Formats: sequence, structure tokens, C-alpha cells
Amino acid sequence: MKMAELSKASGIPVPTIKFYLREQLLPAGERTGPNQSRYGEEHLRRLRLIRGLLEVGGLSVAAARGVIDAVDSELPLAHSFGVAQRAVSAKIDPGDIDPAALAGIDRLIEGWQVSGENPGRLAAARVLETFAALGQRDEGSWLSRYAAAALLVAEADLDQVEARGSREAMAETVVIGTVLGDALFSGLRRAAQEHISTLRHPAPSELDRAPTRE
Amino acid sequence: MKMAELSKASGIPVPTIKFYLREQLLPAGERTGPNQSRYGEEHLRRLRLIRGLLEVGGLSVAAARGVIDAVDSELPLAHSFGVAQRAVSAKIDPGDIDPAALAGIDRLIEGWQVSGENPGRLAAARVLETFAALGQRDEGSWLSRYAAAALLVAEADLDQVEARGSREAMAETVVIGTVLGDALFSGLRRAAQEHISTLRHPAPSELDRAPTRE
Repeated sequence: MKMAELSKASGIPVPTIKFYLREQLLPAGERTGPNQSRYGEEHLRRLRLIRGLLEVGGLSVAAARGVIDAVDSELPLAHSFGVAQRAVSAKIDPGDIDPAALAGIDRLIEGWQVSGENPGRLAAARVLETFAALGQRDEGSWLSRYAAAALLVAEADLDQVEARGSREAMAETVVIGTVLGDALFSGLRRAAQEHISTLRHPAPSELDRAPTRE
Repeated sequence: MKMAELSKASGIPVPTIKFYLREQLLPAGERTGPNQSRYGEEHLRRLRLIRGLLEVGGLSVAAARGVIDAVDSELPLAHSFGVAQRAVSAKIDPGDIDPAALAGIDRLIEGWQVSGENPGRLAAARVLETFAALGQRDEGSWLSRYAAAALLVAEADLDQVEARGSREAMAETVVIGTVLGDALFSGLRRAAQEHISTLRHPAPSELDRAPTRE
């Protein structure tokens, strides 16, 4: 299809598609004339991925490019997670983190096979450091219950990826899941917080006032 | 203490503290002269909260102000979650979401006491919509395992909050936990993904190359 048709099929304006081409988020079409190219289903599919990464994932164009490069690379599955994680994670220098916070995370994930530069390990240590600096402390099992839940979710992620057929489909699910999984879990956690706090602290008059789905 | 001492004690430059005062993130000190105010421990504590929200939580100044207003408000605990959630969540119009995606989330959290405008419910539906648009589908139990893990984490959140003493301390833990909990879980999930994928797909030569903590 031509550029105008690609725009119509995707619902994305032509100037935006041209921007994605310039930013190398979208591969060039097949050249059919001096000012014309032909685009296929793979361009339509890629445009949907780009919109998902930018709008729902909230990624910058540079981060989205890193994620898309991982989809296009020939890396084996085990590495796709690492590439996708690094592409979407803030770069943290381990030297900037309080060693006590790093040690706290390492105790928490003792026995996990995780490399020292795993961006999640560093991000979690950064959180622990801030948590302590804000005068908060683990009142019993907060951290260990988070770690247990993270293992359940990671098992689900791997099952979801492995159910896909081809290497490219698996890599796509890795990056989509890496970005969208954070947003999905954070959304479900907020809904669950309302559910659990309503169960524990019912406030009938307020419940009457607010429209609920129950 | 004076402004210069507050800066020294907090490690935050005076111009930055003045910016927080202007932006009403930090309450004014006690006036002691035409060009001088006195600040107390509560200002130091608040400065740590502000840095945590902005730097680790990644909030905008406007979002941080909303969260801090929730800490300062006299709202009962059950409402602090909602206020904190709305302050840190992107505003989503339910009318913009594909009704099929909303129905999918509602089936997923059937039986949960969650109001229709819960920002987490809308954010999760938005993810589901994008997931489907990207040609992904739940290969079995991906979504329901996320929901089960979210319940475990929300129970841990409530236990953590209820262990605090005063209403103000509980509200502070609610907002700190709302912001930092997302980052903590996302970090632990990434570490767990590396752990599970290494367990399932061992690549000895690569493991030798990468420094691990095991």
C-alpha cells in the first residue's frame, strides 16, 4: 500500500509516519518511484507496536528505538529480556547506590540467578535506599511478599512468551510484556488496594455515594 | 534552623529549596525577621519526601504537589489510597477505552470491590486494549496470574500501612508506597525474569562471561 493508505489503515497521520521513518522506528518501504514507496502488513503491525510503546508504555522515542532494535535483532530469547529491560530502564550506576540498600536487595533475592548489572536489581535497591531515607522500614514482610509476587508474575511472563511460536513473535512478546506488564501490574495493584482497603475498612455511607460495579 | 542550615542538613541547594517553597511543595517556615524564617525537623522530613517523589518516583512537580496535599489532608485512610492513586496516575477517560477491554478487566477482577473510576482499573483496561491491538492474546493464565499477584501485593501494602502508628504516618506510607511500590515491584519482576529464564534456558558459556552474584 502507499503512504496515504498506510495512514488510513493505521489511523496515524502521514507526517507522524514520516517522523517514525526518520527516527528509524519504522523501516523504509519498498522504493517504487522517485517519491513513492510501497508498505506492507509488517509496517502496519510495526506502527501498532510503536504507538503502544510510546503512548501506553510512555517510552521516549530513543527508548522505543532501543526496544524495537531488540525485536529486530537475532539475539536468543534468554537475552531479549535483558535487552528489553535495559532499553526501558533508567541507567543506574551501582556506585551511586548505598551499599546497604544493595545488600538488602541481595538478601531479599538470595538464591536467584541474577547478574550484578541486572537493571531491576539496581532499580529495586534504589527504591530501598529512598524508602530508608524517608524514614520508612519494612514492618515485617512487605519486601519478601513483593519478591514472592514478582516470582509468580515472572513465571507467568515466561509461560506467555514460550507459548508464542516463532523467535520473532517471542521477542515481540518479551518487549511488549516488559513495557505493558509494568503498567498492567501497577493498574491491578491499585484496583486490589481499593478492594482490600474496602474489605478491611468498610465505609458504607461513602460506598453508597460512589458508583461501584458491585 | 535557618535556610542555610536546612540546606546543609538536607544536602539540597538553597535555590532548590526556594523553588520547592514557591511551588508549595514545602510549607513556609516560621517568620523570624523581614528576610528570615526558621525551619524545623518537619521541613527536613518533607524535603526527603519531595526528593523521593521527584527523583525515584519520577513524578512531575504538579503530581508531587497532589501527593503531598494528600499527606497533609485530613482524609480518612481508606481515601488516602484513592487520592494518592489519582495524583500519580495519568487521567484516563473511560469513554476513550474500548468497552471490550473494560469488560475484560471487569471479568478479571470479578468480585473485587472496586469503583468504576478507580484509576488502576482504567489503566489496566488501557493495557488490555493495547495488548489486543498489538495482536497479543492471553495464552492461558497470564492475566489471572497478574491479578492474583496484585492481590498478594495489595495485602502486603495494607499490612505495611496499618503497622504505622498515627494517621499522618499512615498517609505518608500510603503515598510513599503508592509511588515507590510500583518501582520496587517492576525492579523485582525484572530480576525474577532473569532468574526464571536462566533456570529454564541455561546458557553456561554466557553465564561464565557475565559476572553474577551466585
